[in-house]
Amino acid sequence: MIKRGTKPEQIDRLEPKVRQGLTLVITGHGKGKTTSALGMALRACGHGMKVFIIQFMKGDIYAGEWDGIKQMNCDIELVATGKGFCGIQGNPYPWSEHRANAQDAIDLAGEKIVAGCCDLLILDEINNALQLKLVDLDQVLGLLRNKPPLLHLILTGRDAHPQIIELADTVSEVREIKHAYRQEIEPQPGIDF
Amino acid sequence: MIKRGTKPEQIDRLEPKVRQGLTLVITGHGKGKTTSALGMALRACGHGMKVFIIQFMKGDIYAGEWDGIKQMNCDIELVATGKGFCGIQGNPYPWSEHRANAQDAIDLAGEKIVAGCCDLLILDEINNALQLKLVDLDQVLGLLRNKPPLLHLILTGRDAHPQIIELADTVSEVREIKHAYRQEIEPQPGIDF
Repeated sequence: MIKRGTKPEQIDRLEPKVRQGLTLVITGHGKGKTTSALGMALRACGHGMKVFIIQFMKGDIYAGEWDGIKQMNCDIELVATGKGFCGIQGNPYPWSEHRANAQDAIDLAGEKIVAGCCDLLILDEINNALQLKLVDLDQVLGLLRNKPPLLHLILTGRDAHPQIIELADTVSEVREIKHAYRQEIEPQPGIDF
Repeated sequence: MIKRGTKPEQIDRLEPKVRQGLTLVITGHGKGKTTSALGMALRACGHGMKVFIIQFMKGDIYAGEWDGIKQMNCDIELVATGKGFCGIQGNPYPWSEHRANAQDAIDLAGEKIVAGCCDLLILDEINNALQLKLVDLDQVLGLLRNKPPLLHLILTGRDAHPQIIELADTVSEVREIKHAYRQEIEPQPGIDF
């Protein structure tokens, strides 16, 4: 397919001398937090790693990744535990129901960590769940502190708590420069959900 | 799996009244640009969409997504066209070789756009390639202007050009708050490559 250019003479394979499980936080108000975590899931699958994804709050609106995950021939599982974004217009569920669901999600995360579920555990929207008091700071910090040394943990969602940022190895803030919805473009499948 | 919480009463499926192909730019110096694009690829696959990924510059160091893509039971293809990051320490290839490869990559992108290759076309690291003059601004703007109305186009890489940002619908800047490599943690498989 490359016509004028040529292939590199060799393809290197990086192999860290020290394997280390990282804690990553993807926060900010721009588009690309959940998708960044999903991209790492895909990358991890390529390395033969085992992936478990827990979506906090999400679960009431279909998202393409639910079926995308099923189409992957690797050890990857996704559980959407929520009832939508607590408090936003149109969401019919009281805070207490959102809290009950998020509490189950964090219990599940704790069980998965203890059981050595996987090489990569993604806690999608957990930062949001914390800000809405659906989970408690001590619960999240407990997960980070009890993480096995080789497990990679990714926490996504807006407004990550400073103490979580403090404990993390890599933190990115996704800033919105522009967003299609501000031009009244509706959410598009494959991109926005 | 949910014990105390309950499932939402119904799961809604968003369906935009108007389908529109978006141009997205994921830029900035933080971690999570390529992975965000890959996550949208996974999401798009869940919707049964066809995906084509062209990696500019990348191709000399194995990346997990090369095999991750192959494990997906959907219409997705990835071509890594490059010889590494031009100009960085240890890269043995002269600028002219990087340019030849990037020129092939942009020709390929043009062909794919004309041929109606896919629903989502990802041009990974094209912003970097532009900044290093491996491709020309007019070439990239030409792709954006010739894009079929329903095609989603994602451009990743640092330092996106202002004229590209101007034409895009959604632009996110991924800022580095912390990065593991600053604590001398080596790149880890599944996360960093």
